[in-house]
Amino acid sequence: MTLLRDHAAALDAADPLAPLRDQFTLPAGMIYLDGNSLGVCPKATPERVAQVVQTEWAQGLIGSWNDAGWMHLPQRVGDKIAALVGAGPGELVVADSTSVNLFKVLSAALRIQYEDAPRRRVIVSERSNFPTDLYIAESLAETWNCTLRLVDSPEQLPAALDADTAVLMLTHVNYRTGYLHDMAGLTAAAHAAGALALWDLAHSAGAVPVQLVRDQADFAVGCGYKYLNGGPGAPAFAWVNSRHVDRFRQPLSGWLGHAAPFAFEPGYQPAAGITRYVCGTPPVLSMAALECGVDTFAPAVPVGGMAAIRDKSLALTRLFIELVDTRCAGHGLSLVSPRDDARRGSQVCLSRAEGAYAIVQALIARGVVGDYRAGEPARDIPDILRFGVTPLYTRFVDVWDAVEHLRQVLADGEWQQDRFQQRKAVT
Amino acid sequence: MTLLRDHAAALDAADPLAPLRDQFTLPAGMIYLDGNSLGVCPKATPERVAQVVQTEWAQGLIGSWNDAGWMHLPQRVGDKIAALVGAGPGELVVADSTSVNLFKVLSAALRIQYEDAPRRRVIVSERSNFPTDLYIAESLAETWNCTLRLVDSPEQLPAALDADTAVLMLTHVNYRTGYLHDMAGLTAAAHAAGALALWDLAHSAGAVPVQLVRDQADFAVGCGYKYLNGGPGAPAFAWVNSRHVDRFRQPLSGWLGHAAPFAFEPGYQPAAGITRYVCGTPPVLSMAALECGVDTFAPAVPVGGMAAIRDKSLALTRLFIELVDTRCAGHGLSLVSPRDDARRGSQVCLSRAEGAYAIVQALIARGVVGDYRAGEPARDIPDILRFGVTPLYTRFVDVWDAVEHLRQVLADGEWQQDRFQQRKAVT
Repeated sequence: MTLLRDHAAALDAADPLAPLRDQFTLPAGMIYLDGNSLGVCPKATPERVAQVVQTEWAQGLIGSWNDAGWMHLPQRVGDKIAALVGAGPGELVVADSTSVNLFKVLSAALRIQYEDAPRRRVIVSERSNFPTDLYIAESLAETWNCTLRLVDSPEQLPAALDADTAVLMLTHVNYRTGYLHDMAGLTAAAHAAGALALWDLAHSAGAVPVQLVRDQADFAVGCGYKYLNGGPGAPAFAWVNSRHVDRFRQPLSGWLGHAAPFAFEPGYQPAAGITRYVCGTPPVLSMAALECGVDTFAPAVPVGGMAAIRDKSLALTRLFIELVDTRCAGHGLSLVSPRDDARRGSQVCLSRAEGAYAIVQALIARGVVGDYRAGEPARDIPDILRFGVTPLYTRFVDVWDAVEHLRQVLADGEWQQDRFQQRKAVT
Repeated sequence: MTLLRDHAAALDAADPLAPLRDQFTLPAGMIYLDGNSLGVCPKATPERVAQVVQTEWAQGLIGSWNDAGWMHLPQRVGDKIAALVGAGPGELVVADSTSVNLFKVLSAALRIQYEDAPRRRVIVSERSNFPTDLYIAESLAETWNCTLRLVDSPEQLPAALDADTAVLMLTHVNYRTGYLHDMAGLTAAAHAAGALALWDLAHSAGAVPVQLVRDQADFAVGCGYKYLNGGPGAPAFAWVNSRHVDRFRQPLSGWLGHAAPFAFEPGYQPAAGITRYVCGTPPVLSMAALECGVDTFAPAVPVGGMAAIRDKSLALTRLFIELVDTRCAGHGLSLVSPRDDARRGSQVCLSRAEGAYAIVQALIARGVVGDYRAGEPARDIPDILRFGVTPLYTRFVDVWDAVEHLRQVLADGEWQQDRFQQRKAVT
């Protein structure tokens, strides 16, 4: 049976989250399926940022560190994100970038093992983990005389955890495939093997339910500019399980992680709790925009919160897959993301023997914005067409229309036009 | 002779930089002498930030990484700052915070010495260096099995450089005293002793002439939100002498320091040159504001550039000191900043046996915004009243009026009022 567009429209009509889309500015005529790369702009953000610039900064100047609460932004915005990822208030801070935060928490994890189990010198991860995670791990592996053990598929992870393993470091939802790891199960497996579990929530926070405390994760970091709609390069976040957080300083021990930064003492005394994972002065403009992004989740709470968001996300990706199966059959597309709902994040990734880059470009020209991720031909890893769905603003008709455009781009050979072949710097 | 306010007004009338003040929003009725803590807001900034939010982000979305040039902000803004600190194009990047950048460059410096001169295990600095610098150094000293050797006065620095010294790490202008170190002389002394010289330009960039290349500095970092007017928590910058920059990766090896970030390779290959000192995704909103701040220096170029800025800065601080000497005599104030022009940055610091905090509060209540920095009674280090002058917008009459307010606050015992005694979180 081929699903009609009316079916998608009916799903939108019945969607309790549908009104939340009105919180966002979406470019006219664009179907945006790249919120997992850069979230869209909340309508509240321009005014809030203008207020920070024109009132808090330009008029309040230095006094705004107290009077406008700038000093507490890392904790205030952190508490709001904590509520989305199953962490408690006071357990999570917004600071720096995901890469920098990963450096902090992976350093802490390796130091714990160095002290408690010095023979554990292996960091286990996926070869297809987001590269910056692997680069930071590579750097710390050098410092701590460790090695990386990279597996090629999620199924290989349990067997890779052994008596040498210091840390299991994973991105909860794989950026290339949309594979959603079992946080509870893998964390338990890591602990059973004597390892610590560190989770990068870049493609999870705001997209899929996360229960850091319940699942007993050890460390987590995440990104502010994807599903949290914080704006380009928004600050990232760090969370540390309370059983580890006060154990020692993290190496990026800047003044705003000090117990008394304005005492200006020459010796470092880490603040109690997660505040010691703050380093330098927070970028207030970007922080304010991030807070607006996180606040777009508040109206979801009365209609089911993250569980409702997850239900809609799965319904959107199921519809996407079903439409590709039925309406794009015979055009050489393969599904890379898991069909199993329980293992699929909030994106649908496809591959094709040729033309992945050009197909994405042809879709963008039609106003359907997904993205392309290069494969590795030498290792039989295909190029990817990636489509993210973001339940706060993606509609079922957007999915229907996107797949229809995809069908047309393939059916007419439109993607083969020269203008879609030329590579840009950022793709 | 007591200088009259007319004298200050005449200096303003003759000041070639006077028109540049019109580039900034200054709160009505406020004399702002805290630009060395948080610079003021350029008039161009609100519109530029609004454009980034409402057009580049909200409409351009992910495409703006290419189309709006976001990808190259670290280098583009970096080149503009390079021109202010005697560095060449392509030698300096904007990224992260000062603390994080210090971690990067101090790591690199220690690694160079670890490889080339492994017995050099001492980092020399001032005990009164800005605390975050000492905290980061303390952390890296632990990692690299080094120690900190902290001197109590600038005069002790040359003798502290010896065969054990790995790195001389100084803030060029001391935040507490305004003492301006001799970059050329101390860098040469460090090199003569076999050490590397690392300079924090937090209170220098945009305030005093800096010649990183001419003076053969090895590493430098600096702050975007003080004299560069980049806004609260603006990103910071890092510079590495070309003789070191390609030697190895720095430890915060995030994806945007990779030679080909969008190849998504699992192994890290550092980009050529200073780009390898970029780590994660740049905070675009804060970057755009910083660029507006740096652009306020462009109109100074036709009227003498940094040399003219330095001349005015010294004239402002000389006037401040002269007025305190003559008009505030007998009120117990001592000058902490050097009287020698060659050794004084762009600030005047005073001390008083009692009441420093309350005097600053009383001045703020009158609209004269300086700041207070706590001393260390146990080590005979006094509390400080700090007044920064920023030649792009501080007028000579502002200095005259500020000192007159100071005189009145002291003469009338106004500072002794209860309301000025209560401490705030950020002071």
